[in-house]
Amino acid sequence: MTTADVRALRELLPDGRVFDDVDVLEAYRNDRASFCPAGVPAALVRARSTEDVSTTLAWAHRNRVPVVPQGARSGLSGAANALDGCILLSLEKMDQILDIDASEQIAVVQPGVVNGVLAAKVAEHGLFYPPDPGSRSISTIGGNVATNAGGMCCVKYGVTGDFVRALEVVLADGRVMRTGRRTAKGVAGYDLTHLVVGSEGTLGVVTEVTVALRPAAAQPLTAVAFFPTVVDAARTVTGYLAEGYRPSVLEFMDWPTVQAVQKLADLGFPEGMAGMLLVQSDRGDAAPGDLAAFEAVARANDASEVVVADDPAEGELLMQARRLVGDAHENLGVAVLVDDVCVPRRSLVDLVEGLGRISEQYQVEVLCAGHAGDGNMHPSVVFDASDEAESARAQQAFDAIMELGLELGGTITGEHGVGHLKRRWLGEELDEAALSAQRAIKAALDPHNILNPGRVFPEQGGITSRSA
Amino acid sequence: MTTADVRALRELLPDGRVFDDVDVLEAYRNDRASFCPAGVPAALVRARSTEDVSTTLAWAHRNRVPVVPQGARSGLSGAANALDGCILLSLEKMDQILDIDASEQIAVVQPGVVNGVLAAKVAEHGLFYPPDPGSRSISTIGGNVATNAGGMCCVKYGVTGDFVRALEVVLADGRVMRTGRRTAKGVAGYDLTHLVVGSEGTLGVVTEVTVALRPAAAQPLTAVAFFPTVVDAARTVTGYLAEGYRPSVLEFMDWPTVQAVQKLADLGFPEGMAGMLLVQSDRGDAAPGDLAAFEAVARANDASEVVVADDPAEGELLMQARRLVGDAHENLGVAVLVDDVCVPRRSLVDLVEGLGRISEQYQVEVLCAGHAGDGNMHPSVVFDASDEAESARAQQAFDAIMELGLELGGTITGEHGVGHLKRRWLGEELDEAALSAQRAIKAALDPHNILNPGRVFPEQGGITSRSA
Repeated sequence: MTTADVRALRELLPDGRVFDDVDVLEAYRNDRASFCPAGVPAALVRARSTEDVSTTLAWAHRNRVPVVPQGARSGLSGAANALDGCILLSLEKMDQILDIDASEQIAVVQPGVVNGVLAAKVAEHGLFYPPDPGSRSISTIGGNVATNAGGMCCVKYGVTGDFVRALEVVLADGRVMRTGRRTAKGVAGYDLTHLVVGSEGTLGVVTEVTVALRPAAAQPLTAVAFFPTVVDAARTVTGYLAEGYRPSVLEFMDWPTVQAVQKLADLGFPEGMAGMLLVQSDRGDAAPGDLAAFEAVARANDASEVVVADDPAEGELLMQARRLVGDAHENLGVAVLVDDVCVPRRSLVDLVEGLGRISEQYQVEVLCAGHAGDGNMHPSVVFDASDEAESARAQQAFDAIMELGLELGGTITGEHGVGHLKRRWLGEELDEAALSAQRAIKAALDPHNILNPGRVFPEQGGITSRSA
Repeated sequence: MTTADVRALRELLPDGRVFDDVDVLEAYRNDRASFCPAGVPAALVRARSTEDVSTTLAWAHRNRVPVVPQGARSGLSGAANALDGCILLSLEKMDQILDIDASEQIAVVQPGVVNGVLAAKVAEHGLFYPPDPGSRSISTIGGNVATNAGGMCCVKYGVTGDFVRALEVVLADGRVMRTGRRTAKGVAGYDLTHLVVGSEGTLGVVTEVTVALRPAAAQPLTAVAFFPTVVDAARTVTGYLAEGYRPSVLEFMDWPTVQAVQKLADLGFPEGMAGMLLVQSDRGDAAPGDLAAFEAVARANDASEVVVADDPAEGELLMQARRLVGDAHENLGVAVLVDDVCVPRRSLVDLVEGLGRISEQYQVEVLCAGHAGDGNMHPSVVFDASDEAESARAQQAFDAIMELGLELGGTITGEHGVGHLKRRWLGEELDEAALSAQRAIKAALDPHNILNPGRVFPEQGGITSRSA
């Protein structure tokens, strides 16, 4: 993309949309993935309307210029990092909540609305938007849709995709498509809504999202349990769920993680433990019974202590501690590779045992926290990035964790997405027929491969960019 | 497809798979759609394994022979009717429940498993498979997946697709693809699972389904309310949901429907009403409060009587009465065109008012029952099929109902599918970009258009069949 190209694009769009100042571009080069390369973008388009997006894509399609859609750039897989010569297409200024319909229990929003802002706004109407990724205070609904983001709610309520009812999507060639519908049900034609959810900006650019809401849940009751081994904690998760319970939160932290969190917020937890579980029930009058059943399973699995929070404020404090895990790991002052495997819940014991073996084999520390109730764990490989040999071992450990996840019948990514970080691994998870069906769909919808090229799929030729 | 072709296919498959006896073929020509043409099939394949399906499709792909997948043939849109010269590919003999995993709260089943059989089996494990189409005692999970079937559960629990976690799908060329995953979460690659759900046999043939289950719900509490006008009933639905309630059932019947049902099962309902609502809450201790709130909204909207069932048996009796609606309409001894529009719930009043106008305009009776809590109504046009003029007016009324549904921001089909019956209407609902994206995906996955050709999409050339 040449300077003349930037000028041509600027002329097609209203004022204040196209930027190519070096420092602006630099500020938008990266999402939050560690160790993913970011290219040098040619321009940033700050879209303020569907028409802006459509004009930009139509131009890029004609001129074979790669486009990288961006929300808050809080992703963890490098899917929003710049590509050389690309247009960064930012949706952050399209941040309006367009409608909240209480009788239909839906909201219609632009992609740049921050998750936490939407959740707070619908709560004013007595409604509840469950998806709560760790990034919810900064990440946008558009980004959540692009990665099918999860969070702590998922064990009971599901992921972002479970709450997406309709989309407005700009296709690669600039045409605007509506998918899904406002209504609770509908089976007219293929479900393109969920094809676009989780497609990481490779099939189209989402410019409007209709999300389903739920009635507000009851104030949750919270408990924590402490275990002498991580295996005891994992057994408790499997055992509790097998009894037919579905808690609204069921989170795991190993002890190094608890200790890192306690550096940020002293929780007064006991000494000498190996793992803890944090559980909530939001079933109102049924919640005390849910937690009593949890306590029984935990004690049967050698929990040394189980504490039910006396009041909601104490419960919220424990949840905040859980939300500090990311910061706590970053605060360790070393490099961290965060994994995101999700395994069948009956394989959780095998997973945590395997992490111990991997840590030993590659001589790197592997911390672990995660959404245990889903089997979605975030093992974090901690290493000294200035030590080349240790860095190499860390990468091997990171890969070994994904391999273990697949061996256990799981997935390489539960909620962070493939992006750049794991694209080499996609072919390990999908069979040949599925991978080729996915490529065929990508080619059908984006024939010039301008939308986030090279992301998600294992390498196989790039786009022909005029300027690259 | 010639006799030699049938012989060739028979040689590729194990014994007892391929049938071409005229009476067998005749018995498999139709699903339950009224007024949809059925062609003359060339052969029936009764698959007993994924390999049988793969062999059949690979052969059909090579030889350009259309294939119509069939489950229990209980569909209402003609998507399983025979096409001339086609292979009918029946999945009904693949009817095994392969796994029930209590800790993961999933089941893995073959497509021919009957919905009600699965629901009963998982209930033995304290688990709950919510999707409950009216056909649940006969329809199969494979058919439910193909149409993304709904039912009475949807207002609280969602549709079939909300419970499908993974699929094994045989692609048009015979290759076997696995989509999704066993785990609760996963974002590795595009969501092909939900692309196939609801695709009515046009993108692949489903040979295994992994469904998510829920913990068993509490025994529901049931209430009925009777209204002097259908508009009062519709206002009650909208008002109750707008207060943030989410009942587990919220059904509507107009009075002609109630009277038709009472011919089959005397329910002792009051005289001279115009509409009734049937509501359930399965929230245990919270259920009486849910129904009290419902009663308050109903009385504020002029309900003349609201009755809360004294015991679960009485509630179940009321539910059975609701399930008789289909039979009751058929028992009217006249022809019936069953519509399936779904509108935003705040438009329910406009819908029921519009049905009155349509009935008057076209001088045909329009009965109405449906899943009011979803806005998914089944207006039924009743007419004398031997009267040509009346039949034509009935067809016009049927179309006018869909047009009204679209005008109100709804869909032409909430749960029955497009099939043959409504394919002309798909282009009215979808915009040009969405329709062309859907055609592009169909062409990418089924390049010779052998899978249920001519279904779902508006007419646009057929396949080139060697024998057609």
